[in-house]
Amino acid sequence: MGKVYLVGAGPGAPDLLTLRAARILEQADVLLHDALVHPDTVALAANAEKIAVGKRCGARSTAQRFINKRLVDVARKHAVVVRLKGGDPMLFGRAQEEIGALEEANIEYEIVPGVTAALAASAAIGVSLTRRGLARSVTLATPRVGTEEEESDWAPAVVAADTAVLYMGVGQAPEIKRCLLERGMSPATPVRVVENASLPTMREFRLTLSELDRAPGHGVAGPALIMLGEVFDASACNSADAASADAPVTCLRRA
Amino acid sequence: MGKVYLVGAGPGAPDLLTLRAARILEQADVLLHDALVHPDTVALAANAEKIAVGKRCGARSTAQRFINKRLVDVARKHAVVVRLKGGDPMLFGRAQEEIGALEEANIEYEIVPGVTAALAASAAIGVSLTRRGLARSVTLATPRVGTEEEESDWAPAVVAADTAVLYMGVGQAPEIKRCLLERGMSPATPVRVVENASLPTMREFRLTLSELDRAPGHGVAGPALIMLGEVFDASACNSADAASADAPVTCLRRA
Repeated sequence: MGKVYLVGAGPGAPDLLTLRAARILEQADVLLHDALVHPDTVALAANAEKIAVGKRCGARSTAQRFINKRLVDVARKHAVVVRLKGGDPMLFGRAQEEIGALEEANIEYEIVPGVTAALAASAAIGVSLTRRGLARSVTLATPRVGTEEEESDWAPAVVAADTAVLYMGVGQAPEIKRCLLERGMSPATPVRVVENASLPTMREFRLTLSELDRAPGHGVAGPALIMLGEVFDASACNSADAASADAPVTCLRRA
Repeated sequence: MGKVYLVGAGPGAPDLLTLRAARILEQADVLLHDALVHPDTVALAANAEKIAVGKRCGARSTAQRFINKRLVDVARKHAVVVRLKGGDPMLFGRAQEEIGALEEANIEYEIVPGVTAALAASAAIGVSLTRRGLARSVTLATPRVGTEEEESDWAPAVVAADTAVLYMGVGQAPEIKRCLLERGMSPATPVRVVENASLPTMREFRLTLSELDRAPGHGVAGPALIMLGEVFDASACNSADAASADAPVTCLRRA
């Protein structure tokens, strides 16, 4: 029986992988990887049999049940099995289901965290998700729209937070706008849509919540984040103010 | 004039640094680092002059204003300056103030994201922050307690989220408990307190919100996270259920 490593590949750029993940990939006998993981990262597993197992947004993907089964089967025959997931495995990665399958089969596993896309996007656009005097809470969520029940699952935590980052939502941008406005978020809330964070193909769009339905119109096709909050308003707070004193930043929030 | 790299050192374990951060550290002429960064990570900057600039929870720390000034002074004399921060620089790291000082001084900078402590803790305890059918929103926050105004800054986003992770709060555990109960969070909400996530000295405490005031009694002294939500209830959802089918997990949430 082998050991399975559930490894976060990070946000996209191959050098945003952790040292630990790189070392484990080099030792892998078998690698099961998401379709979105960078080819250079996959190539680090030089001696491994490589199996692509989905999932790509909007395209055909391997059913989770099948991935779980494959993982268990492979671990029964190989010493070092790596399950490489985009971003971090424990955030929107359905790792718990794979962990459940491994536990049920009595297979040893270890989880290696990764840099999540929200932090890579924040670094790339140069805007902190938190900021003294302006933001001390950040909500990360995967939106779904439709029924009241579905929307009440994630929207209240987004509206209540100072800063929010929505993963896998850009295809539903008009419905997300409607949902957040209905729940009282200001139409003037600054928004950034960041596509392909950390990759050379990265694109950033600056808009407000009232303009969010235009996001798909920009041809956003790659994995994209919708980032909302006053921290994204470049004019709200002068950088120099924040840097000039140790006193709280006196920066008015828009109503 | 040099270039400043604001680099995330990750959660603690030296091999949870990114490949990019390691490469930049090796090229550093000067390194300004937080007190909590692991000595092995600091040592990667083999050729750099090293300057510890705080901040350690509860101990004396260098004033942010002084760090900003030091960063600018050093960048005027050296080619590669690294500002190494625990975790990720753009989340609770006061990076925006350092960015403001660098922009004001016309100094080039680049931000390198890191693995944040919440994800390292989640990996270490084997519990996803999100889970299909149970959690699709995660709030990360730094609590402060006292006035209604202070508490309304972060607590509503914590109460509204499926999962919440509080950074730098364990010293105020009794007040956090009181504040969250007042705002309607169930006393039975499962809680994990994770100290020194990713380090060999890591400790994990399992409790409920009603028991949170006991956390300091366990002698938690290192940097610790308070993690709250149904995902942390080991008995709420059988792993095998989640793994057995592609249908939504039918897992009742506690009222």
